Amino acid sequence: MKEMSRLQQKRLEYRPLLPSVLRSLATASLIKIPFTPPSAAESLKSLFPHTWGKPPVAFEASKHAKIVEPFRVGVVFSGGQAAGGHNVIAGLFDALKELHPESKLWGFIGGPSGIIDGKHKEIKKQDLEHYRNQGGFDLIGSGRTKIETPEQMKKALAVCESLKLHGLVIIGGDDSNTNAALLAEYFASEKNKTAVIGVPKTIDGDLRNDHIEMSFGFDTACKIYSELIGNIARDALSAKKYYHFIRLMGRSASHITLECALATRPNLVLISEEIAKEKKSLKKIVSDIADLIVQRSIEKKDYGVILIPEGLIEFIPEIKTLIKELNVNLKIDALTKESREVFEFLPKEIQEQLLIDRDPHGNVQVSLIETEKLLSILVAKELKARKESYKAKFSSITHFFGYEGRCGMPSNFDANYCYALGCTAALLIREEANGYTACIKNLRERIENWQPQGTPISLMFTFEKRQGKDKPVIKKYLVDLEDRPFQLFMKMRKNWQLEDHYLYPGPMQFFGDPSITDAIPSILVI
Amino acid sequence: MKEMSRLQQKRLEYRPLLPSVLRSLATASLIKIPFTPPSAAESLKSLFPHTWGKPPVAFEASKHAKIVEPFRVGVVFSGGQAAGGHNVIAGLFDALKELHPESKLWGFIGGPSGIIDGKHKEIKKQDLEHYRNQGGFDLIGSGRTKIETPEQMKKALAVCESLKLHGLVIIGGDDSNTNAALLAEYFASEKNKTAVIGVPKTIDGDLRNDHIEMSFGFDTACKIYSELIGNIARDALSAKKYYHFIRLMGRSASHITLECALATRPNLVLISEEIAKEKKSLKKIVSDIADLIVQRSIEKKDYGVILIPEGLIEFIPEIKTLIKELNVNLKIDALTKESREVFEFLPKEIQEQLLIDRDPHGNVQVSLIETEKLLSILVAKELKARKESYKAKFSSITHFFGYEGRCGMPSNFDANYCYALGCTAALLIREEANGYTACIKNLRERIENWQPQGTPISLMFTFEKRQGKDKPVIKKYLVDLEDRPFQLFMKMRKNWQLEDHYLYPGPMQFFGDPSITDAIPSILVI
Repeated sequence: MKEMSRLQQKRLEYRPLLPSVLRSLATASLIKIPFTPPSAAESLKSLFPHTWGKPPVAFEASKHAKIVEPFRVGVVFSGGQAAGGHNVIAGLFDALKELHPESKLWGFIGGPSGIIDGKHKEIKKQDLEHYRNQGGFDLIGSGRTKIETPEQMKKALAVCESLKLHGLVIIGGDDSNTNAALLAEYFASEKNKTAVIGVPKTIDGDLRNDHIEMSFGFDTACKIYSELIGNIARDALSAKKYYHFIRLMGRSASHITLECALATRPNLVLISEEIAKEKKSLKKIVSDIADLIVQRSIEKKDYGVILIPEGLIEFIPEIKTLIKELNVNLKIDALTKESREVFEFLPKEIQEQLLIDRDPHGNVQVSLIETEKLLSILVAKELKARKESYKAKFSSITHFFGYEGRCGMPSNFDANYCYALGCTAALLIREEANGYTACIKNLRERIENWQPQGTPISLMFTFEKRQGKDKPVIKKYLVDLEDRPFQLFMKMRKNWQLEDHYLYPGPMQFFGDPSITDAIPSILVI
Repeated sequence: MKEMSRLQQKRLEYRPLLPSVLRSLATASLIKIPFTPPSAAESLKSLFPHTWGKPPVAFEASKHAKIVEPFRVGVVFSGGQAAGGHNVIAGLFDALKELHPESKLWGFIGGPSGIIDGKHKEIKKQDLEHYRNQGGFDLIGSGRTKIETPEQMKKALAVCESLKLHGLVIIGGDDSNTNAALLAEYFASEKNKTAVIGVPKTIDGDLRNDHIEMSFGFDTACKIYSELIGNIARDALSAKKYYHFIRLMGRSASHITLECALATRPNLVLISEEIAKEKKSLKKIVSDIADLIVQRSIEKKDYGVILIPEGLIEFIPEIKTLIKELNVNLKIDALTKESREVFEFLPKEIQEQLLIDRDPHGNVQVSLIETEKLLSILVAKELKARKESYKAKFSSITHFFGYEGRCGMPSNFDANYCYALGCTAALLIREEANGYTACIKNLRERIENWQPQGTPISLMFTFEKRQGKDKPVIKKYLVDLEDRPFQLFMKMRKNWQLEDHYLYPGPMQFFGDPSITDAIPSILVI
């Protein structure tokens, strides 16, 4: 037995619940779903001559078993970790074996570079024994290399051909799915028969559209962050002397922050999309926070909890401009007068982060900017300037929650969802659905009613200018300010400011009351 | 119904398990335990003329119910939060009511200052309804004020007299228990009948001696930190590109770090007590870490997890000297040549923290020094200097886990332990055991065999020089390098360095398999 904690061992015993359509794969038969081509159809048709125009598909239980030959399939993780990845592989493996016991599955090692370089290993039943319902991507690893250039595509093709793959499953986010579509088109153009299938992964929750209800990993990450936020809120309320500034991972979109806010009810929550819409300046954000702290102090509450989405800084108009200018020219002297003023308003630590921490392309690394410190320093300064009206002592503690949420054991929701995605990917390979993404519809409903589908990735494309060129992209889904989750949040948040309505979700539970163990993300239910 | 998460609601239903002696309090009768007076007995006798010389006591089931009048008791939290505090109050409340239904309990608000200022509220059955088995100290709050000066003691006495208290329960760490003994002596000298009772609380795990097997809150904090460390280790192993430097709360002693190390098996774990014993310099620590990173790189492992105890910095001999010198004189020019060199070796950020962040007494605030950043910066520098032998890219991410572990929902162990401590405190009040601390022995065994005891706090005292004077203190228990937990760790750690033996404990579970839900700290079991 591999060394494992007791809970790891116990979780191995969990059997993911299956949508009824997936309970007998041989008799799950394909139905085509009518669709309206998107407005960019003509451009897409010319970009994807071999794969464009296919319909979304679903599966339904039928009486006829489809007879198949053994399948040979490859699978790869692309990009950042998300809880449930191993269950996608387990679902895929079990489904391939169910479709034909002699099917074989290979994992590409260390992400898409494993496809290019032909680094792979066969995944056997005993390999999976220690990975079912477990966190992480460590069975085969992951990486951020992209298969983009003609040489990379050619190499990938040669590797898939040498393995005689019927299918290649790429588990990734919006960019990885985009690249999957381009690879699918290339394979088809080269008359290769490998069906390239995407699986929607990202804790950020921004890979969402008419076809994808939710990316996997989001639920687990939010549950882990919410546990910690709740603990800290309870600490704040007990100690009554600290303001906690908590930054949460999640790249651009504020979905994680919104979900965690609904689960824990902090005193103040910044939502990047709202700040962008209202064109709120950094000064105004700081002054709003200071207002709240002064008000709470009048109520004898010199403590609180403030949530900050990782992407915030790029949604503040004048900072966005500043970063743009700094990306073009590193020198402060080259800044416009406005940006120069913004720069000088920033604390020294943050100025240094903007100047020193650059990515390989020389760009400012926005995700490394400690916005939680930025805000707490500026708020402290602002409160000092208000010392006539604010006499209390302002003490703040900053936190960043990110990596601890990506590789936790998947929640029951993510464990079930991922397993179903893996099974669906296997069915899509059987159907030679090259260039499709595996989707599960009806996630709000009981699992037996979940509806496995496949959507041509190209159907999700819009065009965006990138480096001067129109590129097909899957539009990142940002928080919709008109949608119910934000609207509900907006209705409640006023009450959270001065009164304390903290909720303490506690640690994720795997056993016992299903209303706790099987809860799904509230932004899905609301 | 108060707004609560589903898990909060569900946890309210949990009934703490009781040691068999505590199942019928009226018939639990006192037995005195023979003891050998400590070496400092003579000095203690003169310091505690009214309370010195009493024996430790235990309780046993008898056939005779002791008839009592209603009790009037006060309770207070002193110092930092620790999971289970509300259960001490619940146990105390239930026990007082069981002893006599007309007993009354008051909570002092916001810590010991609540006693001095007479800020209190009566705690009734319905007040406790939402706090059973929940985290935090927010029912009555906590604070760090100490009852030390003659005026403070006098005021405390007046308040206890006005409430006609039979007992005052002080839930706190080593300092709070020390002060409880001094207050007990003062009350006795003033012929006041209030029995002052201590309860051993601190997540740090350093309040441990022949009488106290474990302070409460340690178990829950370690389980929360271990969940997060495990998640990060799995992320490291999946992404294969980051070194995670994780600092853990716990003041001076490294118990939390050791416990979490045994639960998660990181690649490298610094134990302050060992570093002090070996007189390891900062340079040597950095060079050891760099050695490991180079060795792992040869094995193609450019990732890893390193645990750092919060107190480390004060255990490194030359840093200890530097801090001492800086506490005496803030100016760098006033440093000795050696300390000056040490100071100049430090990264700029840390130099600034040493110079700027001072506590109200002008001392360096050691707990604010970001040792995890200090080490990662110095290691990066060291690796750069070794670029002939080390070609890989060193990327590090730093973390500090502290506040998120103090107010989590108590583990079953802490929930049971705290409830039993509360019941024991009630029995000690019945026995007029002024100046005693409530203890539970046999924590390693089945709960029914747990043995409630009371120990005169003065029996735990030794003398330490503080500001030139000999003061009675409860000696902080540091990691014992000869003891089994450290010895076991030492035997295993070599294997953790190059091979990866990470364990992933996952989130704390409250329902299901008792080997998971009822696990007790491994440093207790080993």
